[in-house]
Amino acid sequence: MGNSRIWTAALVVIGDEILSGRTEDKNIAQVARWLNGQGIRLLEVRVVPDREEAIVSAVNALRPSHDYVITTGGIGPTHDDITVDSIAAAFGVPVVVHPEARRVLEEYYRDRPLGLTEARLRMARVPEGAELVPNPTSGAPGVKMDNVYILAGVPNIAAAMLEALDGKLEGGRPMVSVTVRAHTAESDVAALLKQVQDEHPGVSIGSYPFYRQGNFGADFVVRSDDGELANACAEELRRRLADAHIEVADEA
Amino acid sequence: MGNSRIWTAALVVIGDEILSGRTEDKNIAQVARWLNGQGIRLLEVRVVPDREEAIVSAVNALRPSHDYVITTGGIGPTHDDITVDSIAAAFGVPVVVHPEARRVLEEYYRDRPLGLTEARLRMARVPEGAELVPNPTSGAPGVKMDNVYILAGVPNIAAAMLEALDGKLEGGRPMVSVTVRAHTAESDVAALLKQVQDEHPGVSIGSYPFYRQGNFGADFVVRSDDGELANACAEELRRRLADAHIEVADEA
Repeated sequence: MGNSRIWTAALVVIGDEILSGRTEDKNIAQVARWLNGQGIRLLEVRVVPDREEAIVSAVNALRPSHDYVITTGGIGPTHDDITVDSIAAAFGVPVVVHPEARRVLEEYYRDRPLGLTEARLRMARVPEGAELVPNPTSGAPGVKMDNVYILAGVPNIAAAMLEALDGKLEGGRPMVSVTVRAHTAESDVAALLKQVQDEHPGVSIGSYPFYRQGNFGADFVVRSDDGELANACAEELRRRLADAHIEVADEA
Repeated sequence: MGNSRIWTAALVVIGDEILSGRTEDKNIAQVARWLNGQGIRLLEVRVVPDREEAIVSAVNALRPSHDYVITTGGIGPTHDDITVDSIAAAFGVPVVVHPEARRVLEEYYRDRPLGLTEARLRMARVPEGAELVPNPTSGAPGVKMDNVYILAGVPNIAAAMLEALDGKLEGGRPMVSVTVRAHTAESDVAALLKQVQDEHPGVSIGSYPFYRQGNFGADFVVRSDDGELANACAEELRRRLADAHIEVADEA
């Protein structure tokens, strides 16, 4: 049932603006979906403030126990952008200017007023020994330090960096999700759900109630890294719900 | 400058559906904003899967170091709702049926088909010693166990529970944020920003670039728990930006 080897990842979202509620995070969902497409399971997310000790502590707690750690946020040119320094501290290495990053930024700012200022050059700084993650959007690259991938916080720039990493990280089989939507209270079918899950080892069923436009119902999400198994289990679930005279929506 | 005592909180978001990217989390932002209104600083968020050991480990890591821990998700009637059992395990106490919760649910399901089934009664279970958090929306209450507040995952139910807790948690002064929006690249003003921040102890300035409708710019967010100080610093920042011939937006 599935692969023997499972690849896992953790995400560290860095930013006071998320913790203050000023900005609604968009990176958790997009990193989660992207990882799933790479066959990598996102097992934990931590949101931490723009403080070096908080970043160091999260990254050092997570990098030994996951194949990959992704960070978002804090890699711009201003004083509150401390991610690179913090990751360098986590690895106990100095920060250096990466020659290729400097070249990319020189090119990017060549025809702009002021050119490559000291502030802009901050974006070429990396922990010693790091590689670059291409940024097709706005010049300043992301950084790969060992198994830690340092991405931008602005969601569309983070998305472009993820795209640049597409297929570059080793992973297993993507998790397949099949959703069965029913117009029922989840409490009415709790026993049935558990029974169907127990009959299908290698499958998990999640139950997510919703209230929309005055209607309530629930999405039952059948998950497995074996797509055939997920589909068979979802089919069985639909049959049992129909037997119990519960209305199943055509489209979930 | 500010209070001597600072109240802090951590949030644990429980849910495979967030980690798989299927569902975009809405609770981080609303809990963050609510806590800020109570004068409590949200210092960390962890998103963990529906697995007891992950929940226990997050809650036990966070509850000694914060005044409050809030959890969202996993308190419904189905087999994947394991938050109450996990928090009981974290505290090393058994799970019991809370008499008042049972009464609330009996009332709620009195006139509905099937009444208070075994699955529905699951929602009256609490860690031994816990109190209830009222749920004005859908019957099943939240739970307060020591400094851990167990709330629903469905965002509008979580919001109703937060409202029920309004003013009930001891806190300090809310953090005041003043946003100065400028049509400039943040790298052009990095030195100026740092200077203004350094001249105003007790204030932090965050810089958040944006690209919208073909325009780029940045929001400079001035934060302090001393509102007068935040306003004075923002005023000074606006003046310096104007002196540097940088266009400041009227409304941020």
